[in-house]
Amino acid sequence: MDVKLVNPFIDATIHVLSSMAFTTAHVGKPYLKKDNLAKGDVTGIVGLIGETRGTLSISFSEECIIAIVSMMFGEKITVINEEVQDAVGELLNIVSGQARQKLEGMGRLLKGAIPTVISGKNHSITHITSHSIVAIPFETDAGRFTIEICLEE
Amino acid sequence: MDVKLVNPFIDATIHVLSSMAFTTAHVGKPYLKKDNLAKGDVTGIVGLIGETRGTLSISFSEECIIAIVSMMFGEKITVINEEVQDAVGELLNIVSGQARQKLEGMGRLLKGAIPTVISGKNHSITHITSHSIVAIPFETDAGRFTIEICLEE
Repeated sequence: MDVKLVNPFIDATIHVLSSMAFTTAHVGKPYLKKDNLAKGDVTGIVGLIGETRGTLSISFSEECIIAIVSMMFGEKITVINEEVQDAVGELLNIVSGQARQKLEGMGRLLKGAIPTVISGKNHSITHITSHSIVAIPFETDAGRFTIEICLEE
Repeated sequence: MDVKLVNPFIDATIHVLSSMAFTTAHVGKPYLKKDNLAKGDVTGIVGLIGETRGTLSISFSEECIIAIVSMMFGEKITVINEEVQDAVGELLNIVSGQARQKLEGMGRLLKGAIPTVISGKNHSITHITSHSIVAIPFETDAGRFTIEICLEE
């Protein structure tokens, strides 16, 4: 996957967390996902389709998403409930929308499907494609999260 | 969601399990998903996009998917590993493809995004949409599974 196609997702993630959750996200080194060892406690997934197929997921540890959503809501959240799941869907929708807008400017038109949020301690995520999957780790004061992107170019 | 749009997914699920995994799946009564209490141990999700947005998921209990994949592979599987996750992705892809083919015959053109498979004991699934989500329970000799569909019409 062309690195130029990854940058819009990184920029959108940093911008959305900053503007919606007053959270600074430091991007780590992107890597190609070779196995399904990436794990999370809450994951948002959205399918992408245009002239190609794709997928975007964002996986948070429990402490990380609880801190982020507490900042978003301006009140202390203590458990992963339906409001937290909806907030993950909302964050994902906006990241996906901003990134797709930039990609459109690069001549790559993609639409987003209905997002799905999965909650469950320490689940693993496998994207079913023969193409490479780019994983991008982020660090915040509240903990780590990872986004994964695949576009079949 | 129009019930006519649901039937192709039911038919495809029964046909794919029968032809690929020699498993008879009895369909239960479809219901509107009002909360996110549906749970599973392995879930496959695929985004759908055409003139509307959609999503399709299929959630299995551990014992159910292990029995189904054992039948598919013709050998006894004992744990949920990468091969089982790939098999869930393959089942989902074929169900999605067959259902979309029937929908196309009804004048509803939809494409499928890259599927994602989530593994983790007793996770919950929330689709982020204001439209109704139809859940369809199935029963097999090996246990139960559920498919969930949403098309924003």
